[in-house]
Amino acid sequence: VIYICAVKTENVQNHYFNHIIYSGYHSESKAKEYKHVCKRACQRAVDRLKAGALAVEAVAAALVELEDSPFTNAGMGSNLNLSGEIECDASIMDGKSLHYGAVGAISGIKNPVLVANRLLSEAQKGKLSAGRIPPCFLVGRGAHDWAVSHGIPPCPSEKMASKFSLSAYKRNKRKMELAEKIDTGHNHTKKRRQSSENENGSGCLDTVGAVVIDLEGNVAAAVSSGGLAMKHPGRVGQAAHYGCGCWAENACSMNSHSTAVSTSGCGEHLIRTMLARECSAAMQSEDAHQALLEAMQNKFISSPFLAGEDRVLGGVIVLRCCRCVEPPPSQNIQGILVEFLWSHTTESMCVGYMSAQDSKAKVSFPVSLISGLSCNEFQIQFAYIET
Amino acid sequence: VIYICAVKTENVQNHYFNHIIYSGYHSESKAKEYKHVCKRACQRAVDRLKAGALAVEAVAAALVELEDSPFTNAGMGSNLNLSGEIECDASIMDGKSLHYGAVGAISGIKNPVLVANRLLSEAQKGKLSAGRIPPCFLVGRGAHDWAVSHGIPPCPSEKMASKFSLSAYKRNKRKMELAEKIDTGHNHTKKRRQSSENENGSGCLDTVGAVVIDLEGNVAAAVSSGGLAMKHPGRVGQAAHYGCGCWAENACSMNSHSTAVSTSGCGEHLIRTMLARECSAAMQSEDAHQALLEAMQNKFISSPFLAGEDRVLGGVIVLRCCRCVEPPPSQNIQGILVEFLWSHTTESMCVGYMSAQDSKAKVSFPVSLISGLSCNEFQIQFAYIET
Repeated sequence: VIYICAVKTENVQNHYFNHIIYSGYHSESKAKEYKHVCKRACQRAVDRLKAGALAVEAVAAALVELEDSPFTNAGMGSNLNLSGEIECDASIMDGKSLHYGAVGAISGIKNPVLVANRLLSEAQKGKLSAGRIPPCFLVGRGAHDWAVSHGIPPCPSEKMASKFSLSAYKRNKRKMELAEKIDTGHNHTKKRRQSSENENGSGCLDTVGAVVIDLEGNVAAAVSSGGLAMKHPGRVGQAAHYGCGCWAENACSMNSHSTAVSTSGCGEHLIRTMLARECSAAMQSEDAHQALLEAMQNKFISSPFLAGEDRVLGGVIVLRCCRCVEPPPSQNIQGILVEFLWSHTTESMCVGYMSAQDSKAKVSFPVSLISGLSCNEFQIQFAYIET
Repeated sequence: VIYICAVKTENVQNHYFNHIIYSGYHSESKAKEYKHVCKRACQRAVDRLKAGALAVEAVAAALVELEDSPFTNAGMGSNLNLSGEIECDASIMDGKSLHYGAVGAISGIKNPVLVANRLLSEAQKGKLSAGRIPPCFLVGRGAHDWAVSHGIPPCPSEKMASKFSLSAYKRNKRKMELAEKIDTGHNHTKKRRQSSENENGSGCLDTVGAVVIDLEGNVAAAVSSGGLAMKHPGRVGQAAHYGCGCWAENACSMNSHSTAVSTSGCGEHLIRTMLARECSAAMQSEDAHQALLEAMQNKFISSPFLAGEDRVLGGVIVLRCCRCVEPPPSQNIQGILVEFLWSHTTESMCVGYMSAQDSKAKVSFPVSLISGLSCNEFQIQFAYIET
């Protein structure tokens, strides 16, 4: 039996604008759609793995499915920025080669993760002409042009906005104008402090990500995001930031466990805490569940890097695998123990997961009550499997 | 006596194009200019510190001086990219607040570090209107527009190119065309491998950086770069990458030493090894010199993240300070021990340093013989000082 696992996540976060976008009917239908797209993404990755794909290809396939949904804030249907434009971030990491590719603030490309993946695979080929080192991170117009010159078709920006992202933009813009009008007369410091107290939110939502282990035991991780609603043009979040949006590292002489991590939440918080890499490092401890709990508490919620932040919003999905565990005595098989964990301080997070043995993906939509102050934790262990 | 230390660095790297740019007269005059600009940058930072500036302001002042030199690959005189344009990366980190600001692939701004510094200080003010989180990392056109809207004057791109960077671009372009012509007829893989064997180089040079400790014992670090010569438009290197280009962390309950690190070299190597943060973490060991040697060897030269790279080119400057050391028994003063270290695998690196007690900056231009395979190491300890 081959063994594989594909998962992904969205955060529906308690941000300033959520009572507009997610109230009533939209909220319900979005949750339903999230579950569906999670399942489709898992299925897509597992199909690819069954056909012999490596983890990195499978994780990219899962991301494409997630980006294509107009309900997620990634690829199609991404948040609009202050200028009413869509600029996306995405990155991917291959635990086998430890190569990495990322794009930031890229416009006019339907699947930013495919550009990140192409950067990764081009970098693996070695140097360019005249000894030049291939890039691992491209941004803006240059990233777009590189993608098109490498055969990735452009997509008109107006096609990437969804009905939801457009109407959210209009409402957010009115809200902002109103907030700035109310603030008139206050001094600068006071104005800023007041707005952070009143609105207990951050304006970030629905980043997508996935972690995968393949038949050979290689891990890979990826993440994609349209970024904060009403962000400044050119703003790059954690989804394009090495060590912050995703991390994947096969087991080696120094690490007994292979680990893959994908994060979502407020980009600036996830960048400054380098959460993906921190969670990956923590996963070398014996008890994965305890280690993730401690990492979320010490490296994120009460991190000195986020001192003074009133709400620390983020979520992670984590895969860790170990060949070194002893197989059950009754079975004459080589074993890999795969553990899948997730944790979030955000209001809710939609998680799907599937192994090659499953006929369909399972999905979970946990909701946290005191978001930003504590975190929800979940863990699933998969049985020993043949390799 | 107040105590302060300002330092900075350039790498003259053995890259494909160096026999053109740096041979004969140019090489000599550049080395001389490097020493001069190092001294000026130290002086500028020390002047600011004496006037009561915090470390983060002083480090930005040093970087402005370095960027303004047409001989360094940062700000004025930066390398041109494939399209003949200048796109700069810069970042700054404040060890006191642990805040961070960065710009990537920014054009038409004379001092990219000032934009990074402004992002840092704006983020420290708290949230924007309507609860939006301020950005810590902006790229491309959006970064330029943000800078201008925050009072940083634009600079026509054509004024930013120097005589040297323009003539280097023309020569590099001819070299590239020639290399690609020679490669015609080889298949893709063969072509790439051949070019990496023949040219033992990387096309990266002369990034600048600085590390500072102020009167209160706060540390700060910054870095600025025009990036690889002939890089793809939109390519972002380590100078804009959190944890890779610079790092600064005041001592705290978990860390007995304050550390500040700034790196230069091949951006992709420095990103994938997260060298600034790794060196900072290593500096919590007892023996700073030994710790830096081991970090350069294990986390950079023979890092699993750079397996397969034939030459690993980088340099770091490191400042570490500790209040916990016992003062000399004869003196009734509170002590800080400041250690300044540098190390590089690149052919050479120009380093300047200065304390408030010095009347002028010292400068060192060490040259390594077997670059990429071993590293040069230097260490200077400053005496105990009053606080």
